[in-house]
Amino acid sequence: MSNKKITALAGGVGGAKLVYGLSRILDAQDFNVIVNTGDDFNYYGFQISPDIDSILYSLADVSDPINGFGRKEDSFTVFNTLEDLGDKTWFRLGDKDLALNIKRTQLLKSGMSLSTVTKILCDSLGIQTSVIPMTNDPVYTKIQTCDLGVMDFQEYFVLNKFQPKVKMIFYSNIESAKLTDQAKKVIEDSDVIIICPSNPWLSIFPILGIPTIRELISSKKVVAVSPIIGHNAVKGPTAKLFEEFGEVPSAYGIARLYQSIISTLIIDHQNSDEIEQIEELGIKTHVTDIIMLDDTQKIRLAQEIVRLLGD
Amino acid sequence: MSNKKITALAGGVGGAKLVYGLSRILDAQDFNVIVNTGDDFNYYGFQISPDIDSILYSLADVSDPINGFGRKEDSFTVFNTLEDLGDKTWFRLGDKDLALNIKRTQLLKSGMSLSTVTKILCDSLGIQTSVIPMTNDPVYTKIQTCDLGVMDFQEYFVLNKFQPKVKMIFYSNIESAKLTDQAKKVIEDSDVIIICPSNPWLSIFPILGIPTIRELISSKKVVAVSPIIGHNAVKGPTAKLFEEFGEVPSAYGIARLYQSIISTLIIDHQNSDEIEQIEELGIKTHVTDIIMLDDTQKIRLAQEIVRLLGD
Repeated sequence: MSNKKITALAGGVGGAKLVYGLSRILDAQDFNVIVNTGDDFNYYGFQISPDIDSILYSLADVSDPINGFGRKEDSFTVFNTLEDLGDKTWFRLGDKDLALNIKRTQLLKSGMSLSTVTKILCDSLGIQTSVIPMTNDPVYTKIQTCDLGVMDFQEYFVLNKFQPKVKMIFYSNIESAKLTDQAKKVIEDSDVIIICPSNPWLSIFPILGIPTIRELISSKKVVAVSPIIGHNAVKGPTAKLFEEFGEVPSAYGIARLYQSIISTLIIDHQNSDEIEQIEELGIKTHVTDIIMLDDTQKIRLAQEIVRLLGD
Repeated sequence: MSNKKITALAGGVGGAKLVYGLSRILDAQDFNVIVNTGDDFNYYGFQISPDIDSILYSLADVSDPINGFGRKEDSFTVFNTLEDLGDKTWFRLGDKDLALNIKRTQLLKSGMSLSTVTKILCDSLGIQTSVIPMTNDPVYTKIQTCDLGVMDFQEYFVLNKFQPKVKMIFYSNIESAKLTDQAKKVIEDSDVIIICPSNPWLSIFPILGIPTIRELISSKKVVAVSPIIGHNAVKGPTAKLFEEFGEVPSAYGIARLYQSIISTLIIDHQNSDEIEQIEELGIKTHVTDIIMLDDTQKIRLAQEIVRLLGD
């Protein structure tokens, strides 16, 4: 359909869906994904990369269609047994999911970088698309809550089900984090950068916060897909965060967040009354169905975006 | 039946069976088990204590009656998935078994000693008998093979299915290992030490090799149960090792190995023609059925031993 070289920036479930769609219509050598690692954490000694795994499982077609994270048809014998042994587990990994995390942890301990390990995991799962961590350095998304102090991302997101009111989000260690060589190379080689319909603060800004990446993409065509439908997010705390930051959740709000970076924002039909407002920011709009309930819809949206880029 | 205080020295499957029987007829405060840790190893980052776990699972009545190790009714989703991901796994943990090893590893990493962690695992499994590691220090049973150099125990036992011809067995780091405080105390408080029907070189000599333990038991009544039935072992390489060390596998051979320590050897009917030879070593014999195919037989043998001690 296109021989433009495309790099997606992604994190979380919405990102994984669009990445799936793009991977099904683009040649592997023309499409790469740079993934947020700010949610990564250590649990029970396992080095867990939730956003990388959402992408891996989506690309390998083994992701859980109900939860949107983890693997489909997984069992929970290990974590059930830990609970039988008296442990209180606030985060539960399925058995198959655990196996991948055991493998990643073991490879990282052997001295490999997260990039190298992620490449090995892609090969193990038969994935041809390059899935590239934004950095091999530890960056931690931290949530400054209004009432409960600073929380680690997973403490906020999983343990507290993103209910605490958020004052500010910051990314610990980001100033000294280095963009991976592979991420740098694929951006340089790209014609287009697609910002996936992921949470801006939790999935995209950690990537854009890595030093040098904004300069690298400044000469590229950058297109974003709004994660807001009407005034809601499909999943997760995007709409809630808009409100906590004193704004109405909207495609226009997304446009303002990405104003300095993007030339086009793809928005949902439900937000078509915001077109004029968004275009006043100097951003083109394209209206379509953004919600992706099944693989057909993921591929359809991907096709529409790629067609748009061809213009 | 008895209010003698009894400490068993055990390792492996035969030891776990007799320990089960003894635990069912003795009060928890009168019965303790000191367990071999020479087989302990690290695999995929997990700190595995095979002999401790054989005892724990046996005492908790969850051990696999077919394999004699691992948990009954366990699944292998995690290790199957690791293999699906391309790993060659030479050692496989069941999912439930893995959970316990995850918990142990995590507690050890938090800075607890193996003794403390084992106590916590006993509590988690509802075990009242004290299961005491011989040492909290790393001791590694090493196999000097005739043709393949020195192997780690698990490399010899699991990976090579104890087929390599053995020249010598030694216990790395044993000179500097310290008997655990709890092991010291229970031996001091004991009236009788029972050496379980475990492999002498692989399960019992590592325990007896810890400095000070031989002195501590020298003033106690020590009874051993032969792991040899006729000229064979019930399980494992005991008979094969006898042959590789140039001896015929026999109860007499066991008697000679424990000659300086034991006052009584409990032998199987099939070895009754060796009584005279054994008693010439200054060791009393007691003849019975040693093989324990089910729980009834484990309890019966335990009862007979305890009755013998009462004399």
